[in-house]
Amino acid sequence: MRIYLAGPEVFLADAEALAAAKRAICAAHGLEGVFPLDAPPLSLDLAEPEWLRIYRTNAAHIRSCDALIANLTPFRGPSADAGTVYELGLMIGLGRPVCGYSNVAEPFGRRSLAYLGATARRRPDGAWEDAEGLALEDTDLPDNLMIPGGIFATGGRFETEAVPPERRWHDLAAFERCAAYLASRASRPAG
Amino acid sequence: MRIYLAGPEVFLADAEALAAAKRAICAAHGLEGVFPLDAPPLSLDLAEPEWLRIYRTNAAHIRSCDALIANLTPFRGPSADAGTVYELGLMIGLGRPVCGYSNVAEPFGRRSLAYLGATARRRPDGAWEDAEGLALEDTDLPDNLMIPGGIFATGGRFETEAVPPERRWHDLAAFERCAAYLASRASRPAG
Repeated sequence: MRIYLAGPEVFLADAEALAAAKRAICAAHGLEGVFPLDAPPLSLDLAEPEWLRIYRTNAAHIRSCDALIANLTPFRGPSADAGTVYELGLMIGLGRPVCGYSNVAEPFGRRSLAYLGATARRRPDGAWEDAEGLALEDTDLPDNLMIPGGIFATGGRFETEAVPPERRWHDLAAFERCAAYLASRASRPAG
Repeated sequence: MRIYLAGPEVFLADAEALAAAKRAICAAHGLEGVFPLDAPPLSLDLAEPEWLRIYRTNAAHIRSCDALIANLTPFRGPSADAGTVYELGLMIGLGRPVCGYSNVAEPFGRRSLAYLGATARRRPDGAWEDAEGLALEDTDLPDNLMIPGGIFATGGRFETEAVPPERRWHDLAAFERCAAYLASRASRPAG
């Protein structure tokens, strides 16, 4: 079972080391990890701009995989990395299993409120909104409800772990729980 | 042709007025706009939590539509609203046409750098990274490359418009260009 390893780790200087660590965890559970930076599984048109070739590579990796694990740790704002969220939606649209994890345990509502700080204000009904008048999704969920919604509605799991900031992009405990869950699902007899 | 109207407008106090304005633009182009707050197209299990029923409603609306227009204006950070990005990915995974628009014209690279402010630093190779060591996608694209990538690779358009901040969530010029484009595609004879 091939697992696409979605997440903003591609932006780390030690991305390949992290990819190797994730691949090893996958292998220990009988899974094959596929990292965005792996060799493209298609021939690319070199006349196209580099960013579009990167898109085509990642999309082809995703389509070649049986499932996806997304690193949904908050990234430059209250929500997960937009590229990772896109890939999660794509895989659910393809009808294949997904899991997600976050190395921040604080709920989305509180993170959003902290992000807005003094600019947050109350509506007449008591709900929070930002300075532009957009309400806060004041929930105990790990992100915008569409993200845990998509994962739960399709039978996946969203694992969270309270990881100290300095290890936030490298701790793989929650990732490993996702891998174990997908492996257990794959090995379950049908019916 | 039914168009799902994805975007964080659902968080505005005047969401229904904006929905009506988008539906009217769709109708002028021979399209039917479907807003996330429209009546659920399925029967919901009231024993489920409200957030999961909202997810199921939106996902069912999306699956009932032929195409999607996403409001990808930056939302609480350099990227678009996470729920909207998820819905965009889902629709592309379903193999249906999408367009996106943003009422901020400044490129993603510059927005990301402005977001990081004084915490941005240079790598030895000159590339920018944040305080956690994650590189910046320093592009002239409108968002993380996966988002315009998914739109362009599937034949859609990403329209941008430099809208003054006070009209950012209500200006529909770029939205209308998306609607006109999808209508022109739908009416084009096959072959």
